[in-house]
Amino acid sequence: MTAALTAHELIARHRPTLDQALEAIRTRAYWSPHPEHPKAYGEHGSLDAAAGKAAFEALLGTRLDLGQPGTDDWVGDEVSPYGVELGVTYPHADVDVLLPAMRAGQRAWRDAGPETRALVCLEILKRISDRTHEFAHAVMHTSGQAFMMAFQAGGPHAQDRGLEAVAYAYAEQVRTPGTAEWTKPQGRRDPLALTKTFTPVPRGIGLVIGCNTFPTWNGYPGLFASLATGNAVLVKPHPRAVLPLALTVRVAREVLAGTGFDPNLVALAAERPGEGIARTLATRPEIRIIDYTGSTSFGDWLEANARQAQVYTEKAGVNTVIVESTGDYRGMLANLAFSLSLYSGQMCTTPQNLLIPRDGVSTDEGPKSYDEVVADLARAVEGLLGDDARANALLGAIVNPDVKARLEAAASLGEVALASREVTNPEFPDAVVRTPVIVKLDGAKPEDEAVCMSECFGPVSFAVAVDSAAHAVELLRRSIREKGAMTVGAYTTDAGVEQAVEEVCLEEAAQLSLNLTGGVYVNQTAAFSDFHGSGGNPAANAALCDGAFVANRFRVVEVRREA
Amino acid sequence: MTAALTAHELIARHRPTLDQALEAIRTRAYWSPHPEHPKAYGEHGSLDAAAGKAAFEALLGTRLDLGQPGTDDWVGDEVSPYGVELGVTYPHADVDVLLPAMRAGQRAWRDAGPETRALVCLEILKRISDRTHEFAHAVMHTSGQAFMMAFQAGGPHAQDRGLEAVAYAYAEQVRTPGTAEWTKPQGRRDPLALTKTFTPVPRGIGLVIGCNTFPTWNGYPGLFASLATGNAVLVKPHPRAVLPLALTVRVAREVLAGTGFDPNLVALAAERPGEGIARTLATRPEIRIIDYTGSTSFGDWLEANARQAQVYTEKAGVNTVIVESTGDYRGMLANLAFSLSLYSGQMCTTPQNLLIPRDGVSTDEGPKSYDEVVADLARAVEGLLGDDARANALLGAIVNPDVKARLEAAASLGEVALASREVTNPEFPDAVVRTPVIVKLDGAKPEDEAVCMSECFGPVSFAVAVDSAAHAVELLRRSIREKGAMTVGAYTTDAGVEQAVEEVCLEEAAQLSLNLTGGVYVNQTAAFSDFHGSGGNPAANAALCDGAFVANRFRVVEVRREA
Repeated sequence: MTAALTAHELIARHRPTLDQALEAIRTRAYWSPHPEHPKAYGEHGSLDAAAGKAAFEALLGTRLDLGQPGTDDWVGDEVSPYGVELGVTYPHADVDVLLPAMRAGQRAWRDAGPETRALVCLEILKRISDRTHEFAHAVMHTSGQAFMMAFQAGGPHAQDRGLEAVAYAYAEQVRTPGTAEWTKPQGRRDPLALTKTFTPVPRGIGLVIGCNTFPTWNGYPGLFASLATGNAVLVKPHPRAVLPLALTVRVAREVLAGTGFDPNLVALAAERPGEGIARTLATRPEIRIIDYTGSTSFGDWLEANARQAQVYTEKAGVNTVIVESTGDYRGMLANLAFSLSLYSGQMCTTPQNLLIPRDGVSTDEGPKSYDEVVADLARAVEGLLGDDARANALLGAIVNPDVKARLEAAASLGEVALASREVTNPEFPDAVVRTPVIVKLDGAKPEDEAVCMSECFGPVSFAVAVDSAAHAVELLRRSIREKGAMTVGAYTTDAGVEQAVEEVCLEEAAQLSLNLTGGVYVNQTAAFSDFHGSGGNPAANAALCDGAFVANRFRVVEVRREA
Repeated sequence: MTAALTAHELIARHRPTLDQALEAIRTRAYWSPHPEHPKAYGEHGSLDAAAGKAAFEALLGTRLDLGQPGTDDWVGDEVSPYGVELGVTYPHADVDVLLPAMRAGQRAWRDAGPETRALVCLEILKRISDRTHEFAHAVMHTSGQAFMMAFQAGGPHAQDRGLEAVAYAYAEQVRTPGTAEWTKPQGRRDPLALTKTFTPVPRGIGLVIGCNTFPTWNGYPGLFASLATGNAVLVKPHPRAVLPLALTVRVAREVLAGTGFDPNLVALAAERPGEGIARTLATRPEIRIIDYTGSTSFGDWLEANARQAQVYTEKAGVNTVIVESTGDYRGMLANLAFSLSLYSGQMCTTPQNLLIPRDGVSTDEGPKSYDEVVADLARAVEGLLGDDARANALLGAIVNPDVKARLEAAASLGEVALASREVTNPEFPDAVVRTPVIVKLDGAKPEDEAVCMSECFGPVSFAVAVDSAAHAVELLRRSIREKGAMTVGAYTTDAGVEQAVEEVCLEEAAQLSLNLTGGVYVNQTAAFSDFHGSGGNPAANAALCDGAFVANRFRVVEVRREA
């Protein structure tokens, strides 16, 4: 960015997009300003495929100097799940220097007001969007997602979620007018009259604690919600997935400087191996907001210990699909096979437990026994992943050794209906690529129930035989209530069963997808329309994105004077 | 209520009021549907002064049977601060029976939707409004407020705050449409199309923990915010101020039954002396929301221990007024004298510390030394309260022995600039009525600073000599940051000082009243326009009322199907 962007230019460039986003979150119809197709990039200043790849490759082995104050070291040892050592190093911060520096620019950022803040955020997102190809490689080589998924989920879909958060943040702040005249009649006496000003003020510094699997998609909502509401934001990426968020921070700092604000309003906190800096940062008095995606144990720790902060967590859950009956057996199998395979089941939204009546399922192809349904699903997965090129494009790589170990252990948990197989990735021979395993369990056996009631993150699904639809609904209710769920799916042609499942989801606050047989999958949500999580069950204390996600990131200070 | 009210009747009766409330919270101009003048009552079904008093008196010595399930005893030993034993007993609940019963009606209440819930709440408020005279006596004889204040603050102003919460709750729930059609283009292929439904679902049971001084005003926002968002509400009143909330619960139960809902959606939890039932209730798994007004210690305990619930607290704080300079010395003195006297300083919004430069104050009547300002303020209070009838009408009664003890101890904290005096109440000779004490402190002395930096709830103010305006601003910042503040006031004609005070309030999130010299006082806030607290400093973690106060009382559950 060479010349500073004025407020007027920001309005001309981004206000229409903000208005469309505000309309989209109101109607929840489909909308996105961020193209999903890789070929849509390369004009109007955006990088095309070749330029994006070259930009990514030029980063390898370099020091990513963000110009942050208090940098006392350079750290980073990311190794791609595809086997490539990234060799990028990042600033390690002396937080006693960095945190005060981050506060220095907050007053000007606060005084800029909600609209300017939103438009600066949109400029950041636009410049990230222009580099989507570069980000796609960065996401791929940290999360292990296959390229197309890294491109879409790590690019336009993440940018959508960031923009959605900006829209909610803006809408929330302008619910109260900047000024008001208040005149209260006093009968025959003069009225009481006050002039009031209302200013949204930030809480302090927001801390974003990133995850390994979706560094941008899960990181952007909190980052942009906090920034748009006037807070500075410190981004603490997962040590295995630093690059996508470091690039994000770099763009944000460039845009802030280019719009006349202090670049230190956004900073990166990379860490040394084993440093565990999140715990230290999370309890610093300057940190007043935390956004976290990751394990239940650390999420619970944050909620209990980071008492000075508003804490938004997305933790583990146990996702269930009930398979009771269907009018499109082939469509159901294909849809489920895709859901289980996508990114090797390493999504917080991937189904884990498939609850299937032991007496079988009624379908458009006649009754199917429990064993038939499981075998047909196994065949559907095999068919989907039979071709190695296609398998690689869908599965991506196993993100870390823990997932691989869990996958390997799963085969001993019950009868294996579909064994996991190794897939070779010709481009990246060191990548660990595995197809999902499906294990049969009996939901009436306490030991099997115990297995399916704990999260087994990765490409592991349980085909759980249940006594009846009612048994399935009861297991569903208990697993949401006790373990949480990011998603619930159900296949049924029975109005009573549908109603029972829906009622459980309403009572336990879980998001339900019913009878998906086409090109929408239970593990995918679309910004501006679908809520990601509900914030009402143990899997997450917040939903992406709603009023509650933004409303407490700022406060409104009123100053009143006699008119 | 004899005949059931239909949805159609509710809309005709209350939708216009709801729409006006929605408009008021958007513009924050003056508005209220609840008359402040006692003589405005007596028509259209409302009780006039005589009927209201008679209704109150008829309650004395009776058992208030609310028809609640699980009632295992009758409890109550309220003694009015005016000396009257109320003799009213209330149901004591077996919570293992009552809590499940409260959940029984939640599904129908949820399915009724946001509009019907809002309109039922408005019907409850209307029926409370009709009984404002009765409530005024109940508030007076539990809080010790003088009649007119009990009437206004406990009546229309409390009802306004309840209605405001209903308006926010309604607006928040309808931000997401009930249904949406989502169609995503797929190039030359058929678009993906989903039909989505969005349902606001309650969190569970809301617990309202009432306070002694403002049972209705502080109780209604949480009660109506939780109820309007679909939750059942259990009201746990302060043992000294049960009656106003018991009457509220009675009206709510009647209206719920009369509109076809389960009356057990609202219930009372009165307690035996010393039972401390709030701790037990607050950690029950059924309780998912808590609204609390009271001491910092119990508020902190709730925040730390009631981890299964959303906890909204208003705790103690230290309120400051900076007196630096004024263009209306007489107006300032009169305004401050009133603020210190109203309800014997027993408001969470009453100023405690008056920071006055030791070198004096510039005024329209020439320079005034610190001693002169303090003496003139003392005279203004004496003048205001010189007539016993007027003193009684302003001061009310001391609410409990702790306040009296604190007032008596205050005289030893420093030089007394204005001694407290006993006032006789001819109508209620047992009432403890006291005028405020003003004690001089030196803000440069650590021991004096320690005194003024802790809350001294009651009719005690400190005239704190400070070195300069900058010293005052620094003390203000520190007291907000460390102790919290519900209100801040300042008198200054210096633009630089004004800006410095405003900046501290913006940075520390405190609500500021500047140069009030007329009929609006720093300790009063008006619903629909003023925020009560900011939720951003230690005095309260929530503001009355804003989006954050309602947005997390419910969650939105989405169900999506292929279109």
